[in-house]
Amino acid sequence: MSELSLIAALERVLRVRGERVVRALGDDAAVVRAGPLAVSSLDTAVEGVHFRHSTHSPADIGHRALAAALSDLAAMGAVAGEALAGLVLPDTLADDDAEELMRAAEAVAERAGVTIAGGDVTSGPALVVTFTVAGWADSVDDLVGRDGAGAGELVGVTGELGGSGAGLRLLEGLSVELPDGVADALRRRHLRPEPRLAAGRGLARAGATAMIDVSDGVATDAGHVARRSGVRLRVELARLPLAPGVAEVAAAANEDPAELAVTAGEDFELLVSARPDDRDRVERAATAAGTRMSWIGSVAAGEGLELVATDGTARPLRGYEHATGAQRRSADRVPPSDPGPA
Amino acid sequence: MSELSLIAALERVLRVRGERVVRALGDDAAVVRAGPLAVSSLDTAVEGVHFRHSTHSPADIGHRALAAALSDLAAMGAVAGEALAGLVLPDTLADDDAEELMRAAEAVAERAGVTIAGGDVTSGPALVVTFTVAGWADSVDDLVGRDGAGAGELVGVTGELGGSGAGLRLLEGLSVELPDGVADALRRRHLRPEPRLAAGRGLARAGATAMIDVSDGVATDAGHVARRSGVRLRVELARLPLAPGVAEVAAAANEDPAELAVTAGEDFELLVSARPDDRDRVERAATAAGTRMSWIGSVAAGEGLELVATDGTARPLRGYEHATGAQRRSADRVPPSDPGPA
Repeated sequence: MSELSLIAALERVLRVRGERVVRALGDDAAVVRAGPLAVSSLDTAVEGVHFRHSTHSPADIGHRALAAALSDLAAMGAVAGEALAGLVLPDTLADDDAEELMRAAEAVAERAGVTIAGGDVTSGPALVVTFTVAGWADSVDDLVGRDGAGAGELVGVTGELGGSGAGLRLLEGLSVELPDGVADALRRRHLRPEPRLAAGRGLARAGATAMIDVSDGVATDAGHVARRSGVRLRVELARLPLAPGVAEVAAAANEDPAELAVTAGEDFELLVSARPDDRDRVERAATAAGTRMSWIGSVAAGEGLELVATDGTARPLRGYEHATGAQRRSADRVPPSDPGPA
Repeated sequence: MSELSLIAALERVLRVRGERVVRALGDDAAVVRAGPLAVSSLDTAVEGVHFRHSTHSPADIGHRALAAALSDLAAMGAVAGEALAGLVLPDTLADDDAEELMRAAEAVAERAGVTIAGGDVTSGPALVVTFTVAGWADSVDDLVGRDGAGAGELVGVTGELGGSGAGLRLLEGLSVELPDGVADALRRRHLRPEPRLAAGRGLARAGATAMIDVSDGVATDAGHVARRSGVRLRVELARLPLAPGVAEVAAAANEDPAELAVTAGEDFELLVSARPDDRDRVERAATAAGTRMSWIGSVAAGEGLELVATDGTARPLRGYEHATGAQRRSADRVPPSDPGPA
């Protein structure tokens, strides 16, 4: 299939939704009626780094790529609007697989009320999927950055942690005695994350002072909030809301469950800070959005992130971080059981 | 250097410009005060497909990637606003090279009044540079798509054609007797294209009925206008404004100069259709933007693109098209002299 034929096939998968889109697909650029504030983010997923064909179907890859990008809009409290797709397709990928990938992304877009309005398709040595997403807000007061956490506030997180990391270990072949439903849920948690868009909007309005999505793990992401806010975050590992099955998977992998949960990343939950007075409002906002707030720590004057174990000692952990340059080959985001990127 | 250190180094290269940006870098997403209409496009450049380290420095790669993305905004008539950068960095690329790439993109952004407001950096098997650009417009009347060309109209193009293709042949080692200044200008034309942003805005307001940037070559891009507008475009090869030196390079490469000019692509000029009554206005708009309009053809009822040679015969040509799937390996965008992508 030629590039133009494949692009036409991919475009047939896509639907315009809502009244916002003026021009989508077929022009040099997409045109959209804007809200007062535009919120935009770009997220790239690379074969051998963020996914592997041995564990991820084309549909998983397309779903995850758009969900991860939308999660950044959730973390700002924005209303998701439009997306642009960038696909680098190796000649080893069948055109049908590219369509399957785009259909899964379109399903994520549909649930989020998002239009995939344009993009770029090219050939290349490995599958690379980039989504740029644009969201909208009426006022800066509706949005939350990473820089607003203040001393004396609480630190909370939506939903459950560790599920994605545990699911990845199962996908890679780790053998664990688990009820089928629990194992399936963990694998699905890794393969098909859902962006917390409704929770993000609700938490922003309920008084979250800082917010970030847990994409690299609490051990890294809470550190971003501490640095940008100029404060110290203290997170108690015993209070983390572990997903069912994480303890069993961690045991089978000879890992500490809480350490797995704060370092594995990709849970795409939202970590927030909030004033104690807003505690109930924030909890209600999470519940209204179909999730649950767990309070896992506090904010103090100072700097850095302190992860406190059950015995009261500090644990020096950090989440996934892609090393670069000379260190990149030996320190990539590859679990120990994995032979590494191609 | 760790990912976070490299990101910090890249961010230090960037500057916020204008009053539009509310939040740039350091949060989950960038926040910008929007115009009434958002115009957005994504463009990806891949090592071995769009550039090679043997012919392109990191600065050339960064410059070209952002310029190509902004060229899409030019082709809509939008005012360029913000950009997001997606970098996939192989471990063979030094961190200094990544910084050089970003500095060159920042220089393009500065000239265009654009803020690079965020992005994503990850590792991967080959260098992939994606820029998403957002532009703004006050009204749909200020913008031009590919779909407005009507029978009886003229077809014109800004600037000069063939320079980028000729420059690439020189970069690849083709030996041609040319004055140094001419050869340098051709190479620069390929390595450092400039998006025609002022011309795009001016042409849109002067009455261009359809517009597209010449990124894949007139033989492909004029065909897009014909198809989207539901008309037939006729382009006379003898009327193409060839860049100085294109004839000599084509002769040395045993190619027809006009055929080289319409198939090589990457000139990033603007091709427009306009009513004969608007001819003078369109010419003045081009001149006011520092370029020159050449009228190269006409629009008629029917479909498709007709490329007419000097002797009146139609030439079946098409511009660059990335083949995909099974055809991709043998029909990629690789010049004959090149061993192909890794």
